[in-house]
Amino acid sequence: MILGVDPGSRKTGFGLINQVGSRLEYIASGVIRVHKEPTMAHRLDLIFSSLVEIIDQYCPQQMAIEEVFMGRGPDAAIKLGQARGAAMIAGTQAKLEVYEYAARKVKQAVAGNGGATKEQVGYMVQSLLKLPGVPQEDAADALAVAACHAYTATGLINIAGASHSRRGRLV
Amino acid sequence: MILGVDPGSRKTGFGLINQVGSRLEYIASGVIRVHKEPTMAHRLDLIFSSLVEIIDQYCPQQMAIEEVFMGRGPDAAIKLGQARGAAMIAGTQAKLEVYEYAARKVKQAVAGNGGATKEQVGYMVQSLLKLPGVPQEDAADALAVAACHAYTATGLINIAGASHSRRGRLV
Repeated sequence: MILGVDPGSRKTGFGLINQVGSRLEYIASGVIRVHKEPTMAHRLDLIFSSLVEIIDQYCPQQMAIEEVFMGRGPDAAIKLGQARGAAMIAGTQAKLEVYEYAARKVKQAVAGNGGATKEQVGYMVQSLLKLPGVPQEDAADALAVAACHAYTATGLINIAGASHSRRGRLV
Repeated sequence: MILGVDPGSRKTGFGLINQVGSRLEYIASGVIRVHKEPTMAHRLDLIFSSLVEIIDQYCPQQMAIEEVFMGRGPDAAIKLGQARGAAMIAGTQAKLEVYEYAARKVKQAVAGNGGATKEQVGYMVQSLLKLPGVPQEDAADALAVAACHAYTATGLINIAGASHSRRGRLV
């Protein structure tokens, strides 16, 4: 089972999928909302604790997380980094290997287009996992990075261009 | 007892001090070096685990951490944020309150000058804590932020200018 995580200092998406042969099976997904916590330390603690709980409950073997590309300022980068740190330690403390995928690679893997919109990613996640509706955006992103890891790790991915075909970077 | 932490993605300084009246007592300090770990996730995990161990051993009640000011690019900010996240969760998981102080305020508190150099901070930390030598730079910074918190939290600090006299921000 693969746990995909889309961390953020306000909302952290998570998604769990199973791989059965070449087919992906949806297990669970959701969003950890921490914006109401009184301090940043409480927010990070809640991200960490919630993911620890999810890992305890579902016992995934691997974790996939989106590589960040920051167009915003250093303050936003620090906050996002803190949330990622919290998420990654939840994984490593449970002895999961943590893999990182560039956003373009995730979109390419699930939507066949590295420049796909949020809507296209949501739609493709729904379709790939045979869901009754489009998941909330952060949950969809988390499921997408989990799916990207499933495809990449098992060589099922079919991406044109050698530069995109390298495996996920173990971070 | 106060645990001061100066996090970084390669080296994380820590310092423990006790406050006895208006006097500060040195307990321990050191540097967690993680640059040899194979992946970023392993580095963060080692920062977290080492701090958890230090907290278990010394049982501090509060944690102080330097507020970051990033002059470098977003990639450095993300990495620093991740290390800070790891450090802060080590504190929150042990139920410590985590306080954040701007670098200028730390320098003002220990060296009487917000623009003090690293060398001046190291020298003042040695002098304040009656140490036989100047601690390694990251350890000195960690001891400095712990000292800053001790002074600030107990109203012992004497800083000219109202804008500097507010208490540490609980993050």
